[in-house]
Amino acid sequence: MTKDRLFYLPLGGADEVGMNTYVYGYGPPDRERLIVVDMGVAFPDMESTPGVDLIFADVSWLAERADRIDAIFITHGHEDHVGALGHLWPQLRATVFTRAFTGHLARRKFEERGLDGKTVKVVESWPGTVQAGPFRVGFAPVSHSIPESSALIIDTPAGRIVHTGDFKLDATPVVGEAFDEAFWRGIGDQGVHVLTCDSTNVFSPLPGRSEASIEAEIRKLAANASGMIAATTFASNVARLQTLASAGVAAGRSVCLLGRAMRQMVEDTVTTGILTDFPKTISPDEAKSMPREHLMLLVTGSQGEGRAASAALSRGRYLGLELSEGDTFLFSSKTIPGNERAVLRVVNALSRKGVDVIDDTSTLYHVSGHANRPDLDRMHEMLRPSVVVPMHGECRHLKEHARVAARNGFASLVAGNGSLVDLTGTVPKVTDHVEAGRIYLDGKVQVGALDGVIRNRTRMAMNGHVAVTLFLEGDESDGGPWADLTGLPGTGVSGKSLGAVLETELDRQLERSMGHGASEDEEFDDRLADELRSVVRRTCDTEVGKKPEVTVLISRSN
Amino acid sequence: MTKDRLFYLPLGGADEVGMNTYVYGYGPPDRERLIVVDMGVAFPDMESTPGVDLIFADVSWLAERADRIDAIFITHGHEDHVGALGHLWPQLRATVFTRAFTGHLARRKFEERGLDGKTVKVVESWPGTVQAGPFRVGFAPVSHSIPESSALIIDTPAGRIVHTGDFKLDATPVVGEAFDEAFWRGIGDQGVHVLTCDSTNVFSPLPGRSEASIEAEIRKLAANASGMIAATTFASNVARLQTLASAGVAAGRSVCLLGRAMRQMVEDTVTTGILTDFPKTISPDEAKSMPREHLMLLVTGSQGEGRAASAALSRGRYLGLELSEGDTFLFSSKTIPGNERAVLRVVNALSRKGVDVIDDTSTLYHVSGHANRPDLDRMHEMLRPSVVVPMHGECRHLKEHARVAARNGFASLVAGNGSLVDLTGTVPKVTDHVEAGRIYLDGKVQVGALDGVIRNRTRMAMNGHVAVTLFLEGDESDGGPWADLTGLPGTGVSGKSLGAVLETELDRQLERSMGHGASEDEEFDDRLADELRSVVRRTCDTEVGKKPEVTVLISRSN
Repeated sequence: MTKDRLFYLPLGGADEVGMNTYVYGYGPPDRERLIVVDMGVAFPDMESTPGVDLIFADVSWLAERADRIDAIFITHGHEDHVGALGHLWPQLRATVFTRAFTGHLARRKFEERGLDGKTVKVVESWPGTVQAGPFRVGFAPVSHSIPESSALIIDTPAGRIVHTGDFKLDATPVVGEAFDEAFWRGIGDQGVHVLTCDSTNVFSPLPGRSEASIEAEIRKLAANASGMIAATTFASNVARLQTLASAGVAAGRSVCLLGRAMRQMVEDTVTTGILTDFPKTISPDEAKSMPREHLMLLVTGSQGEGRAASAALSRGRYLGLELSEGDTFLFSSKTIPGNERAVLRVVNALSRKGVDVIDDTSTLYHVSGHANRPDLDRMHEMLRPSVVVPMHGECRHLKEHARVAARNGFASLVAGNGSLVDLTGTVPKVTDHVEAGRIYLDGKVQVGALDGVIRNRTRMAMNGHVAVTLFLEGDESDGGPWADLTGLPGTGVSGKSLGAVLETELDRQLERSMGHGASEDEEFDDRLADELRSVVRRTCDTEVGKKPEVTVLISRSN
Repeated sequence: MTKDRLFYLPLGGADEVGMNTYVYGYGPPDRERLIVVDMGVAFPDMESTPGVDLIFADVSWLAERADRIDAIFITHGHEDHVGALGHLWPQLRATVFTRAFTGHLARRKFEERGLDGKTVKVVESWPGTVQAGPFRVGFAPVSHSIPESSALIIDTPAGRIVHTGDFKLDATPVVGEAFDEAFWRGIGDQGVHVLTCDSTNVFSPLPGRSEASIEAEIRKLAANASGMIAATTFASNVARLQTLASAGVAAGRSVCLLGRAMRQMVEDTVTTGILTDFPKTISPDEAKSMPREHLMLLVTGSQGEGRAASAALSRGRYLGLELSEGDTFLFSSKTIPGNERAVLRVVNALSRKGVDVIDDTSTLYHVSGHANRPDLDRMHEMLRPSVVVPMHGECRHLKEHARVAARNGFASLVAGNGSLVDLTGTVPKVTDHVEAGRIYLDGKVQVGALDGVIRNRTRMAMNGHVAVTLFLEGDESDGGPWADLTGLPGTGVSGKSLGAVLETELDRQLERSMGHGASEDEEFDDRLADELRSVVRRTCDTEVGKKPEVTVLISRSN
């Protein structure tokens, strides 16, 4: 008889902020029943993933065990928790459970991919539960920066797991459910085996501030600004949209939404009954004819995204609206590491227009949606689990959180993506490592991070590309090799055209290669291609200091 | 008779942090004599300048007027003030004046480019001066984060200019000259027409802290750490190197320098007599045999640079040394916007090894080298100029600094790169705009930012590259077109090989194009190439959602 075990396996989110994808398993080793918690995306950057659209966790380990998956649970509707669902679900095909608002967004993910949205089942929050194999799972409300965020209370034969999802301790969240300390203390009293806990803000030393705490400052700003106000935040931060819009209206301003995500989110929250008193908005066309001091724009693009409304406004007119001297632009948001240059580009472009920009360094107009270190301490203490498993964060966050947990007297460990953690007893341990990579959505196609596609693109970005063509008839060449350059300077250190220098050197090499005995076989052609490639790289290195990617195309007359 | 005028013209540094390149002119309009202040670089990033090595100001405006340049002055030895000197000097060929330590570094810039280092003339600091055409220029010491930083006091027939260079108000700078408030008040008493003033830290609301203020904390850290300590900072921050090294020695640690720039800078400062009591260092080989708690490594790579010592240590063993559990890594530095991801990569890799990382969010171990807003207020007040010209900063910095100056009661304006500012009277005004672009050092070659070379590389990075080859004999093709793909997925949404789908579509197009009447002229070939290019882009878009860069090579038998 094999003893059943309980395990935790992060496939994404436990080596980065974003891409949350977690697995719990229970049963006899290698025959455990499985549930998946969240299927999120990470976002690409030009440095490591040029041209990539989205990044998902590699779920091949799960796909190979799809028949053992009893359910997928989504804690909340942020892209880094639900964004990969439509893309990866066809490999897993288990029922998806969510709360109502998250379900609304999750269904859209399905429909966008031509899948049946009915696969997403909406469940009531705690004390409601879903039985999924050996797991009984309930959605218990927590406060965060999108409505209906939930921790999962997961009862298993080996004890109870509380999986926090993203959360903060906010008693006055403006929109949605407040963090209910009494409830969570009650859960703690019932006994918690494992607390799997958000780690993203573990380095923030002060207690988190409430969403309500910034309301007064935003109202003051809206009332005192002389011209138009444009404010940006994540569209999914519904409480913030409400605060900004109300402040605008209180200051006699009409609210205009710019950017698809912004309009969509307000529509979604009104449809689903999340927002009941969001002010009536006006269209950009109506806004055009309003005095600017009576306007409040809510715009997409808090991260400086080139195609969002904020960047468009920074460049010039957008849908007939233009910011100018005396107007105010407010970043009611935090710049995510890696987006600084893009955000500063928007800030400086607006600044050049004479707009007063209030950037994210002011802490008056934004609060985080995650638990800071003292809040984590409180959460540990409310739940008093046997084990704290730090989740969602880079290695440095997980490690610091494990340290905080240990200091608070709890067993803990650092488990990165692919670490299978046995949680059966009171001492958690990593007992296995599974392949946990990244998959890139590249245009319409998923490519593996290690497939070489992106590596080749990065190389071309650094060093340019040369295409060499050569036509051979028998053992003679017709016209000699040609070189076509992309992304390389036209002139090298010799002062001559790089193309011309290359063709001279290619001619010479061709003569040498043919002189050694040409033959009409593939082996000869392969060797010749290698020799020509080397000549191109060597010559470019000498002339322009770059070793480009080289494609050699040798054609033979039939 | 034409009236003489005095002007200021930033060619770099007045729309960015870095790339400092300023011009002053005096004389009859369009016949002014010119001096250049600083010739610095900016640093590339993967997003906008992949593969680029360095960025310079475009000095073609100056080059066309090289006969009117009387001198080049370098305020201090940071790369963003002196780094372009060797690269751009051949276009300008004027004598370069510096103080001794800066001259040491500037001469190396010349020699690295095969130029005669004797062009750099070392001058004594104020009251020493150099006459350069109508300008009499003196180097007046200021405190900053590299030795012998100087403001320039520039006397002209239209009044005195104080050009601050980079500076802070530091009465206890650890190494080098303290900021001498009495001296600067004296200069103010003599009358200053224009204060051209560093703006980079204008958004920092608190008075700047002294270099000496962090000494105690660094000493405490060095004494209390249990294992090895590795600390990184800019190699040019000589005072910091001194503080770190002394703290190490005081804690019974031997100091080992890792990274070329670090060794070079310590050697330079000892050679030039800047550092007189830097501790004796040990080699990496000697360090290997020391107990780790007796070691203090000073390493390059505070910005997460992939090839620097810090990144090498984060990946594994470097020169026989390896950090592990219980060791400490200190960032005694600030992360420059845009480098966050690179720095976090190093932090997380070290964290994974069990190293305690103290990152740049702690303010205990680093102070800035620039004047904060209250310091700028003090500087304005010490010098009481007729005009404050904000210099060195992004648009947002210059604008805020102009606002601060106005609030302090001084005439001011925002002048970005290429703005020619007439400073003859007491009201500064932009009277002209000259072409002020960027030049990229790309390998060994300088290319213009708008030449398209980098744009093409960026496009390949985003969308991949396809090379199409076609051999034509008369009005028939030999073998049909071939396609060779780089940086594109092998399989598209049809499930077929993308290369095969492309060749089928290319065949079809070729047939259509030839059917419309083939002819053996260039016009036909150009049209055919365009048609084949469109087919490739359209087919790739359908199959993989990407429109690649396409090279079409049509060859004809003779």
